[in-house]
Amino acid sequence: MARVATAEGRGESPEAGDRSARSRQAILAVAAGTIARHGIHGLRVERVAKEAGVSTALLYYHFGSRSGLVNAAFEYASELAPSTALRLASDEQSGYEAVAAALLAELDESPDVREFSVVWGDVSANAVFEPELRPSVRTITRAWRLTVAAAIERGVADGSIRSDVDPDEAAELLIVLVDGFCIRWLSGSLELERARHLLSKVLAQLRPPDEAGAPPG
Amino acid sequence: MARVATAEGRGESPEAGDRSARSRQAILAVAAGTIARHGIHGLRVERVAKEAGVSTALLYYHFGSRSGLVNAAFEYASELAPSTALRLASDEQSGYEAVAAALLAELDESPDVREFSVVWGDVSANAVFEPELRPSVRTITRAWRLTVAAAIERGVADGSIRSDVDPDEAAELLIVLVDGFCIRWLSGSLELERARHLLSKVLAQLRPPDEAGAPPG
Repeated sequence: MARVATAEGRGESPEAGDRSARSRQAILAVAAGTIARHGIHGLRVERVAKEAGVSTALLYYHFGSRSGLVNAAFEYASELAPSTALRLASDEQSGYEAVAAALLAELDESPDVREFSVVWGDVSANAVFEPELRPSVRTITRAWRLTVAAAIERGVADGSIRSDVDPDEAAELLIVLVDGFCIRWLSGSLELERARHLLSKVLAQLRPPDEAGAPPG
Repeated sequence: MARVATAEGRGESPEAGDRSARSRQAILAVAAGTIARHGIHGLRVERVAKEAGVSTALLYYHFGSRSGLVNAAFEYASELAPSTALRLASDEQSGYEAVAAALLAELDESPDVREFSVVWGDVSANAVFEPELRPSVRTITRAWRLTVAAAIERGVADGSIRSDVDPDEAAELLIVLVDGFCIRWLSGSLELERARHLLSKVLAQLRPPDEAGAPPG
């Protein structure tokens, strides 16, 4: 986005700006798909450019460097995360229902969810060795936590979540748990159904005593 | 180990067997250290052999292939995990104390713990793309879960853990959570102290009502 704005700022025509935004989106879609299939280490900048139908020069124009591309692809993929739906949560769902639905949706075989999950896990894992990936990981983790915490807060307010739950701590725990489940699932050491069952049980502990069907936590 | 046994089985002298075991250990220590510093993708078989003071041929003799080496280094590193202490748990600790101490010890800045944690995280993350890493990940995850579950079971028996806790489910949740915390910590998106604080709170939910100081879960 910043790059597109710059292009427009330079006095390019709106059509050129549109083309620029489109080529940027095309590159990001290819890069995210490549990371999902082969991991960051399987991403070749030249190949991404070719697959997106742009020149390598244009790719570098948009993203500056290989790690600029990886960061942007990561941010692009994170917009596809099921939890982003929480930002648009409707009043038809209680806070609890919204949180539970959004987090359980992260554990899903559908190709989009799996793609996002693989990209997220791979970029997080590589941030251990590549410090230039850390700011994006930190920013997106923080945004995710705040979104979940806000929904939990709404649940406390509407009575669907216990009043003694600390929204920020509960949100942090839940998203750490979802990430842990994703890596187990994707690396083939935990069945998706088992992960969903266990996450459901943890989520149920957020319910107030009279609705949980079991003693509260 | 299998390879050493084969060498001995071929009628090599016990001294040759010792040398073989020593060179194998030396290679594993170098390989695990290399993965901890640079990740699997930074591991060069020739460089590992050189640093361990053996020929590349001997390395291949021991491990068969690059992924054989990575798997063995992973298994070697996992023996250094703090949770392995649970297998030797003494009677001086309650089951709860043993579980809490072992899992909190996984979130520790000491170089050995960090090295293990990085290797574990990197191999798990790469198992998503490299199916040949999955059997080791699965085996070690399973062993870890069973060890923690056994300690929880002991805690239920000695009264230090609530009787309604399902040892296997609780163990699975706790180790998934520890892994999730490790990746956050190592990728720089969660402070170690915060992770330890949150894990302590989850562990406290295992305590029976009269010892938890708060309503049970």
